[in-house]
Amino acid sequence: MTIEGKTGAAGRPIRLGMVGGGRDAFIGGVHRMASRIDGLYELVAGCFSSTAEKSLASGRDLGLPDERIYGDYDEMARREGRRKEGIEAVAIVTPNHMHAPVAKAFLRRGIHVICDKPLTSTLTDARRLVNVAERSKALFVLTHNYTGYPMVRQARAMVAAGAIGTVRVVQVEYPQDWLTVATEATGHKQAEWRTDPARSGAGGATGDIGTHAFNLASFVSGLTLESLSADLSTFVDGRRVDDNAHVMLRFAGGAKGMLWCSQVAPGHENGLRLRVYGSEGGLEWSQEDPNYLWHAPFGEPRRRLTRAGNGAGPEAGRMSRIPAGHPEGYLEGFANIYAEAARAIRARQAGEAPAPEVTFPDVRDGLLGVAFVDACVRSSKRNGAWVELAL
Amino acid sequence: MTIEGKTGAAGRPIRLGMVGGGRDAFIGGVHRMASRIDGLYELVAGCFSSTAEKSLASGRDLGLPDERIYGDYDEMARREGRRKEGIEAVAIVTPNHMHAPVAKAFLRRGIHVICDKPLTSTLTDARRLVNVAERSKALFVLTHNYTGYPMVRQARAMVAAGAIGTVRVVQVEYPQDWLTVATEATGHKQAEWRTDPARSGAGGATGDIGTHAFNLASFVSGLTLESLSADLSTFVDGRRVDDNAHVMLRFAGGAKGMLWCSQVAPGHENGLRLRVYGSEGGLEWSQEDPNYLWHAPFGEPRRRLTRAGNGAGPEAGRMSRIPAGHPEGYLEGFANIYAEAARAIRARQAGEAPAPEVTFPDVRDGLLGVAFVDACVRSSKRNGAWVELAL
Amino acid sequence: MTIEGKTGAAGRPIRLGMVGGGRDAFIGGVHRMASRIDGLYELVAGCFSSTAEKSLASGRDLGLPDERIYGDYDEMARREGRRKEGIEAVAIVTPNHMHAPVAKAFLRRGIHVICDKPLTSTLTDARRLVNVAERSKALFVLTHNYTGYPMVRQARAMVAAGAIGTVRVVQVEYPQDWLTVATEATGHKQAEWRTDPARSGAGGATGDIGTHAFNLASFVSGLTLESLSADLSTFVDGRRVDDNAHVMLRFAGGAKGMLWCSQVAPGHENGLRLRVYGSEGGLEWSQEDPNYLWHAPFGEPRRRLTRAGNGAGPEAGRMSRIPAGHPEGYLEGFANIYAEAARAIRARQAGEAPAPEVTFPDVRDGLLGVAFVDACVRSSKRNGAWVELAL
Amino acid sequence: MTIEGKTGAAGRPIRLGMVGGGRDAFIGGVHRMASRIDGLYELVAGCFSSTAEKSLASGRDLGLPDERIYGDYDEMARREGRRKEGIEAVAIVTPNHMHAPVAKAFLRRGIHVICDKPLTSTLTDARRLVNVAERSKALFVLTHNYTGYPMVRQARAMVAAGAIGTVRVVQVEYPQDWLTVATEATGHKQAEWRTDPARSGAGGATGDIGTHAFNLASFVSGLTLESLSADLSTFVDGRRVDDNAHVMLRFAGGAKGMLWCSQVAPGHENGLRLRVYGSEGGLEWSQEDPNYLWHAPFGEPRRRLTRAGNGAGPEAGRMSRIPAGHPEGYLEGFANIYAEAARAIRARQAGEAPAPEVTFPDVRDGLLGVAFVDACVRSSKRNGAWVELAL
Repeated sequence: MTIEGKTGAAGRPIRLGMVGGGRDAFIGGVHRMASRIDGLYELVAGCFSSTAEKSLASGRDLGLPDERIYGDYDEMARREGRRKEGIEAVAIVTPNHMHAPVAKAFLRRGIHVICDKPLTSTLTDARRLVNVAERSKALFVLTHNYTGYPMVRQARAMVAAGAIGTVRVVQVEYPQDWLTVATEATGHKQAEWRTDPARSGAGGATGDIGTHAFNLASFVSGLTLESLSADLSTFVDGRRVDDNAHVMLRFAGGAKGMLWCSQVAPGHENGLRLRVYGSEGGLEWSQEDPNYLWHAPFGEPRRRLTRAGNGAGPEAGRMSRIPAGHPEGYLEGFANIYAEAARAIRARQAGEAPAPEVTFPDVRDGLLGVAFVDACVRSSKRNGAWVELAL
Repeated sequence: MTIEGKTGAAGRPIRLGMVGGGRDAFIGGVHRMASRIDGLYELVAGCFSSTAEKSLASGRDLGLPDERIYGDYDEMARREGRRKEGIEAVAIVTPNHMHAPVAKAFLRRGIHVICDKPLTSTLTDARRLVNVAERSKALFVLTHNYTGYPMVRQARAMVAAGAIGTVRVVQVEYPQDWLTVATEATGHKQAEWRTDPARSGAGGATGDIGTHAFNLASFVSGLTLESLSADLSTFVDGRRVDDNAHVMLRFAGGAKGMLWCSQVAPGHENGLRLRVYGSEGGLEWSQEDPNYLWHAPFGEPRRRLTRAGNGAGPEAGRMSRIPAGHPEGYLEGFANIYAEAARAIRARQAGEAPAPEVTFPDVRDGLLGVAFVDACVRSSKRNGAWVELAL
Repeated sequence: MTIEGKTGAAGRPIRLGMVGGGRDAFIGGVHRMASRIDGLYELVAGCFSSTAEKSLASGRDLGLPDERIYGDYDEMARREGRRKEGIEAVAIVTPNHMHAPVAKAFLRRGIHVICDKPLTSTLTDARRLVNVAERSKALFVLTHNYTGYPMVRQARAMVAAGAIGTVRVVQVEYPQDWLTVATEATGHKQAEWRTDPARSGAGGATGDIGTHAFNLASFVSGLTLESLSADLSTFVDGRRVDDNAHVMLRFAGGAKGMLWCSQVAPGHENGLRLRVYGSEGGLEWSQEDPNYLWHAPFGEPRRRLTRAGNGAGPEAGRMSRIPAGHPEGYLEGFANIYAEAARAIRARQAGEAPAPEVTFPDVRDGLLGVAFVDACVRSSKRNGAWVELAL
Repeated sequence: MTIEGKTGAAGRPIRLGMVGGGRDAFIGGVHRMASRIDGLYELVAGCFSSTAEKSLASGRDLGLPDERIYGDYDEMARREGRRKEGIEAVAIVTPNHMHAPVAKAFLRRGIHVICDKPLTSTLTDARRLVNVAERSKALFVLTHNYTGYPMVRQARAMVAAGAIGTVRVVQVEYPQDWLTVATEATGHKQAEWRTDPARSGAGGATGDIGTHAFNLASFVSGLTLESLSADLSTFVDGRRVDDNAHVMLRFAGGAKGMLWCSQVAPGHENGLRLRVYGSEGGLEWSQEDPNYLWHAPFGEPRRRLTRAGNGAGPEAGRMSRIPAGHPEGYLEGFANIYAEAARAIRARQAGEAPAPEVTFPDVRDGLLGVAFVDACVRSSKRNGAWVELAL
């Protein structure tokens, strides 16, 4: 196997820009590494901060020429859009409230967007962005990166193929512990903006990680959420957003679910875990041990499927770079979103449809996530009343 | 260490009778084994079935003389109560709806009662039984056996000592898979009565295993439930009780929780699992691997405490029979309830208070369990409205 | 299922005596609990210490009448052998060097022997005891208790049925950490005699736990050891026996193995673990999590078989008392040896052969164990030369 | 944190060439991905096959211009060595027997070498290559990639700091199952050359994975091997090299060890696992779950340290790209070797010593590995005699 052949590495890499991701950021570096692993992208421009000097310093760190480093995303969109060898795609890795304006600026110039989640900080922004994105010639890719893990793809394929029968129960959780104390009061940049409703949105844990949990549950189960009942809490004094959410779920067709996300659960780093139970079997997957998928056919012993190993099917294989037993991790899963995006971008540039198996979260998935946060907040304010997503 | 010395085995064993637990039963045998391990009890009489011949056959299987085998529990209570060397305690292991009448018959004659859970099949029965029990000279012990596991005691002691700070979040679950299909329609005795509201009570999974989950969460966290919101489901056609329950919990003082119990979750046998998170740490315990307790002090690595091993305190030690690394299991945990009961019975007979560390679930815990089921059913009928326990 | 029915509890329990197991002992209490769980034995006599007062105090602790408490095992054998309702079987739980004389005293009087391991402290003693036992009418049962675990039986049955093809490699280990420091110098009774060659035998870790590992590997794999190469070490200053052993194994037919036992491996309590690999699959079992057996058919996903659960066969079922998901532990496995012994004793008393499935370690297995220790010591002295067992 | 800042990404990437790694290869793609993640290298030339057309096709797949694609490694070394913007470093990913000639060709021209393991297929080649490498101005980096895992670095740092006291016992194993059947007879390229002594060397499993296990054990424990006793086996008919090795180890200073490697152990993919026990604690690490390191201080509960998380020190942090709970895997560990190499190369180019923390396996480690294989083969031929490494 030529490993790069799998992801179509042949030929020229896609010219990529980035907005956000300067020296203080976390997720920007993740996007850069994810874009590099397969050699499908080349970072050639960026606006890494709204402060021009910071942006310049960060861009130079990354080896970019000064002329491709911007202090203003709109100027970047304008100039790159006009430039002969301008960027073909942009990665947006700003705080949430900036996703919408930045994305629109690039979409309007036909530049493909790869945007971090949640889609936006408000539902209004999300709806408008959907409109813009759907009218644009450019693609919109949302990095709900957990859907890029090979064994998540495997789980989705198994559910779709009926391996566990009719889905009845979905249990999903995403506990963390980093906000157990008032980290945001200590000058921690990540904690600061993520607990600021103006930048993060009305949801705290709900928006930051609840959206991931909800997206993952939907992606694997194939179910459509009908309504939810939420009980949001803020356990740390002075915090302005929720840091723990208990949510009950009802899906179209009668399946039920529970979602728990928390940022005050000591002992958990990124404990995203999904369990799906059907009339004929169960599946379990955990983000911290992502190379395994547990499958329990009803009445038979529980089996441990391994990435690219025994019991793993073509979809997991397609998403794998190395043999079973050599663990792949978060960056590889993230890179799979980038690889799928590259295939879609290349197809779009060629005026073709992408191959049917190409799958990535898009602007509609983003709207669902923001609507999920909105519904959680509304339900919780109404003492856990069942509410529908306001799409 | 003289192992028996720990549980005060010296001297004459307590004369035990049993109601229920004949040839088709499951839990009766468990009670018998649990009562035998430490040599604290001797089974000397029983009414093992309401059918006289079945009772006789079962009693003979157990080596009892015919004169101590009864076809009627009331006659047994009467005759054993009058007999010079009559039973001192009775184990009640019938279907739920019979717990109340049987218990009353023995309590009224001053015979100590060790009763399986849930306390009764209706809330009315439970309240009346509390009255009878509290007016009786005899003790009432409820076998919420999971509280007998050493590492559950360890967890309770740690929470009480402040090892995890103020409790904020309690996640408890008890998934099983044995009712994934309509087992009750196949002549399976256990499945039959457990899905029959007349014998089991209004709750299915809720009553059978949800009560265990609720009891365990309360026992370890030390918290009092204030209200709950429940969404009960019946996934198997024709089933008359719930087989899956999603419940959100609010505790006095502001802690929140989630409880999931299910009998339709393929891959789970008896997946009772408790996680408690406080302002300074987290704890995790799983019934299927009961010799471990995971402790995550906030900001430090997760630790695996082992029964009678490193990190385990005196309460876990007191409940242990053998050294760390030699696993104890379900029967030993169950036997700990019997051992605690024996100490309490001996103290009562001596006109003394039991040693302060002696702890067992009692009739009030039983009432809480039945009220929990009642509240789940009421809440679910009102579309998940928050309801309080009707004690 | 009537649980007791499985183990033939009906009828009168076997009258049991005990030699050893007084107040300071560990394994005596284990034997007593194991003998009680199923109601198949009743302890009626004992010589719990060679010091008469200690024996008396211990026996009274256990509720025995003074006339059945002895200060001398030989007197006990003589008087119980003559007594009308004398003991039918004796449990020998003394330090190793006393096994042979005590066993002979009872065997000669036709009293069945249930003896702790290793069989004896010297190879000469072992050979002689085999002769006595094989000429006696009484049974000799050796409590290599790990063979009583249901999933060990399951593994043995699977190997015998060809589930993993031809066995090629056997990896077995038994690490502990309790002798990481010079515990024997602190007055710890267990450590004292176990590190004293005169009482324990020439092997330290080798004799105490290496024999278990070797027995387990043989029991499950069905293989006969042909030769071994050993490297024994003593890491703690002043210790008189080995505390760590590395052994390479060659089995008849060409299979190879490794055995590691250690009492100086921090982090391990009783980490007995067996892995067997054949031409068509692998099996893995761990004593600390004994309710699981991992089966990896070559080319298929790894499966977790559970005791009495999915994938477990009749042999595991026969050895189980309670349903899957309710863990059984060390005492239940130990009790299975007692239950098998009871069936064999009853059959012998009835002049019949026991049912064909009845299986327990006997005096020949004991000889193998002592020969294994002897071979390890000889090989190590000859710098790891390959040596055969001197049977 | 600017993630790239950690690895000094600033500035121009190192110009990298590759020998081997064409369309049929496995490890070539791994090297390419590892070299790309951090943006520290740019692949600009290669000789991907000794067949010119294959090399050309592979190079074009990778987007290289034809003029930088070679059919002969010597020509490549010559021309790149003379070229103004020629390669600065070369990755050698051929079968083992070609490592030495290729490496020499580049070393002689001052081009830094990053070479796959084992160093060579013969001990003679290894010794000569050491001489050439040590006389060269260029660096020699051997990709014993497991030493790049952050928690392996953590373990090494802890042992060095005395966290487990004096090391006594080292248990290391590397089981796989891919050669359980005669895969090499089915046209499988990887299996073919790896079981061909002419290309692979005298060791089969010993050379391919035993060298990794030995290197890892040495790297973490800091111990020097004094002698070994090996029992090599070939279980699959017709196979020309060992597929299972049992090895006992004696280290300078008195520590002992066992090493097991196997390619016929069904259920194992890449089960490299290391356990180190000292006078004050134990450590355990497993390659398939590499983000965890278990630490058992003697007398305290076992702790799970997580990469970049609680309990992890600066060395693990330095080797991490993303926060705890987001798993890193094999490629990231591999990339750490490349990142360390980049720092060393940049320092060498600047005429400076690299920062003191920069650590990577070198040609001497490679010689040790080849000598280890040689010693295993010699010992096994002499029926497990203890032999020393012939350095």
